[in-house]
Amino acid sequence: MPYEFKATRRVEFSDTDMAGIMHFSNFFRFMETAEHGFYRSLGFSVALKDRTPPLGFPRVHAECDFKRPLRFEDLVEIHLLVREKKTRTLTYEFRFNNLSNNPPEEVARGLVTIVCVTHDANGKMAATPIPPDIADKIEVAPAELLA
Amino acid sequence: MPYEFKATRRVEFSDTDMAGIMHFSNFFRFMETAEHGFYRSLGFSVALKDRTPPLGFPRVHAECDFKRPLRFEDLVEIHLLVREKKTRTLTYEFRFNNLSNNPPEEVARGLVTIVCVTHDANGKMAATPIPPDIADKIEVAPAELLA
Amino acid sequence: MPYEFKATRRVEFSDTDMAGIMHFSNFFRFMETAEHGFYRSLGFSVALKDRTPPLGFPRVHAECDFKRPLRFEDLVEIHLLVREKKTRTLTYEFRFNNLSNNPPEEVARGLVTIVCVTHDANGKMAATPIPPDIADKIEVAPAELLA
Amino acid sequence: MPYEFKATRRVEFSDTDMAGIMHFSNFFRFMETAEHGFYRSLGFSVALKDRTPPLGFPRVHAECDFKRPLRFEDLVEIHLLVREKKTRTLTYEFRFNNLSNNPPEEVARGLVTIVCVTHDANGKMAATPIPPDIADKIEVAPAELLA
Repeated sequence: MPYEFKATRRVEFSDTDMAGIMHFSNFFRFMETAEHGFYRSLGFSVALKDRTPPLGFPRVHAECDFKRPLRFEDLVEIHLLVREKKTRTLTYEFRFNNLSNNPPEEVARGLVTIVCVTHDANGKMAATPIPPDIADKIEVAPAELLA
Repeated sequence: MPYEFKATRRVEFSDTDMAGIMHFSNFFRFMETAEHGFYRSLGFSVALKDRTPPLGFPRVHAECDFKRPLRFEDLVEIHLLVREKKTRTLTYEFRFNNLSNNPPEEVARGLVTIVCVTHDANGKMAATPIPPDIADKIEVAPAELLA
Repeated sequence: MPYEFKATRRVEFSDTDMAGIMHFSNFFRFMETAEHGFYRSLGFSVALKDRTPPLGFPRVHAECDFKRPLRFEDLVEIHLLVREKKTRTLTYEFRFNNLSNNPPEEVARGLVTIVCVTHDANGKMAATPIPPDIADKIEVAPAELLA
Repeated sequence: MPYEFKATRRVEFSDTDMAGIMHFSNFFRFMETAEHGFYRSLGFSVALKDRTPPLGFPRVHAECDFKRPLRFEDLVEIHLLVREKKTRTLTYEFRFNNLSNNPPEEVARGLVTIVCVTHDANGKMAATPIPPDIADKIEVAPAELLA
């Protein structure tokens, strides 16, 4: 389905902190894991080495609401939904479901906006339209899923 | 000043990713560095081991707007400002200034809300008022600084 | 098999650095992932919360030889082999095989020695024999596998 | 002194794990912090962007012996000493001193060997002599310091 993707991760020891729970910064890493898995499921990689000029997808905004902690060895599903698609940007929603809870429960919800950029010879970035061969593969999730 | 704090960090090699810039998740780690330095500057530590029951300050919300990338060896100032103070929560604003640019420029701005919790014997968390000896030391930044 | 375990991981964007390869410190995190998966495969967890006194398994030595880099999205198998078993310590060998190469090739080899410790009320650690219900489940790999 | 360098770091919350101590993989990140600070102290950066062909310094070996844990907010000195200098490789020793202990005590000791490489157009690495303008600035520490 070109508007959603589910990745699964087990919380590792190195993901935890001295409070005994997953460090909050790792929720953002897990969002990216789901995002890149989404691209692979559509048949391409976020590492677009062969484009001229080279393209990248830096984040312009990221946020997360934390409802319940995740702990070591918890199995977590990261459910990506495409929220918004514009010429140059994409916004994804991420729902974290703790599958080690019975029944599974949503423990966090995040949002990330990425922008398509080119890099000039000095590494300077400029926003650019998402190439059609990528944009055409991605669609916004049905409204009822985003409610 | 009990409403602001400035921490300084140099972007390390392990903070970067294959795009050649600081990975976005590390901005959140840097925010926490400034937050904990703020507490030390007020004479206490976020690790409140000696309280009965033990207290913690998990995050309930975190967000960041990324304007410009940070690169390896950039010297970055993280300017914490207290935005809001409630009975159980504190909200901090963080302004990232790249001091390696001439003149320094703001590259990102973040927001974090933390909640004071107790842990019961099973590790379950419950929100609780911030103890007065901590709350009394922290005040909201003047409106003109937050504008 | 109580002397080996294979974990599989895909190299993530946040595992890479500005050199475009997996940061060397993450090989050590991946070793731990395999180690903890090994324990789960034997029916227990490294987080031994219910023991009195509580036990832990800190590392006393870790090393790695890096032969080839790992890159973003490479699928890597981490093959754990039990090298040595003593009263208080265990030594594991880890072979990193890049499954994205055709044929798969060994890209790194590591070694970790852990020690079983108790924590006293002040958090101070003291080495202690590995409990029999754990030690009995783990055996040293056959010599021909370790050659 | 072109054979040693001392970096100082405070252990951050995100450096700790659920065992309440600094995660062992972060000792390797701290070694690199000291190494790169050493290069800056000699007037150059490990990011040699302007060389043709571009050079890099990947690790071929890294190891660490852990004697005592580091905890949140501990101030740690990472003392780099040049152990060996060959045409293509450099070996550094790192001594971790916990300055928050009174008196300071050595908590860990590490070793890292790096190799100078060029990257061809496909990103493939090949070992190459360390350029004289870099090699000439670095010398092996006196034997009595390495004892």
